[in-house]
Amino acid sequence: MNFTLKQIGTIHTPYKDSAPYQPVDTGEDVFFLELFDGYSEGLQDLSAFSYMYLLYYAHRVTQKADMAVSPPWAGGKEVGVFASRSPVRPNPIGLSVVQVKSVAENRVYTSGLDVFDGTPLLDIKPYIKDLDDKPKANYGWLSDLDDMEHLTLHIRGIPHEH
Amino acid sequence: MNFTLKQIGTIHTPYKDSAPYQPVDTGEDVFFLELFDGYSEGLQDLSAFSYMYLLYYAHRVTQKADMAVSPPWAGGKEVGVFASRSPVRPNPIGLSVVQVKSVAENRVYTSGLDVFDGTPLLDIKPYIKDLDDKPKANYGWLSDLDDMEHLTLHIRGIPHEH
Repeated sequence: MNFTLKQIGTIHTPYKDSAPYQPVDTGEDVFFLELFDGYSEGLQDLSAFSYMYLLYYAHRVTQKADMAVSPPWAGGKEVGVFASRSPVRPNPIGLSVVQVKSVAENRVYTSGLDVFDGTPLLDIKPYIKDLDDKPKANYGWLSDLDDMEHLTLHIRGIPHEH
Repeated sequence: MNFTLKQIGTIHTPYKDSAPYQPVDTGEDVFFLELFDGYSEGLQDLSAFSYMYLLYYAHRVTQKADMAVSPPWAGGKEVGVFASRSPVRPNPIGLSVVQVKSVAENRVYTSGLDVFDGTPLLDIKPYIKDLDDKPKANYGWLSDLDDMEHLTLHIRGIPHEH
C-alpha cells in the first residue's frame, strides 16, 4: 500500500553541495525552516519546547535502497539499513532532533542540521522530556568501531580537528 | 510537491478499537512489527540497539488537519498542531520511541506502543545515544497543565490508578 505526503515547507541550511555528518552549530541564524502559507498557525506554542523533531524528504537521494548499507565513517562495516540512519532507505524520510531557537511568523530558527538547503519539510513534532529522551539508550553496533571516540565527537556536535 | 511512501510492514498491538495515550508495557510479546518480504535483511544489527524509532502511517485518521488542536488530556487547552503529537496533522505520520526487545526473522518485538493493530509501518531507525537523547529536553506547554503530575505518569508509562 502507498501513501502520499505533501511538502509543508522548506529547510534552509548552508549546505548547497555537501552536507556534513552531524554538523557543528555555528551559532548564526543560518539553519531555519520556512513554512508554506496556511501552516504558520500550527507553530503556536512550539517555542515553549527546547527541542523538536523534524521529518523531511531526502530529495537528493537517487540510488535504490539496499537492505545492507556501509556508512561512510564506519570503516567498511556493513549493517542493515534499519540499523542505520542512511538516507538511502525504502522510504527516504529523514529524522533529526534539533533545538527550537526561535519562532517568527512562518520561520523556525534551529540548531545545526545535516541536510541540503532546500530539503522538503514534512512535519515538526515537539520533543518531549521522558517520552523521547531515553537515558538507557546505547550506541548499538557503533560501540564496536575503532574510532568510536572520534565518532562520538561528531554525534555530540563537538568541534574538533581532523 | 507530493511524495509517495510505501508500507514496509505492519505494527501489531492489542488495540483493535481504541489505543491508550502512552500505553503501559504488559511485558508479554504482544507488540511486534512484521516486515514484508524483502525487508527482513534490513534488520541486521538492529538488535544491538536498546531503542529504535518507528515511523508509521496513522491510517485510521479520517479528519482533516486543523492548525490548532486540543489534546484530549489537556483540559481544553488549544495548541498549534506542530506543538502537539496529535495524529491528525498535515502529514499523518506517527513517531514513537520503543525498546528493541528481540529480532527474529521478519519480526521485531517491542515495548508498548499506542497505535492500532494493523498500522502500516514506514520506517525503523536506530535511536542513538547522544544523538537522540537530550538531557536538556523539557515539557514545553505541558508544564502549565493542572494535572501535569498525573500526565507524566502516562508519559513515563508508569502504571497507576485513575
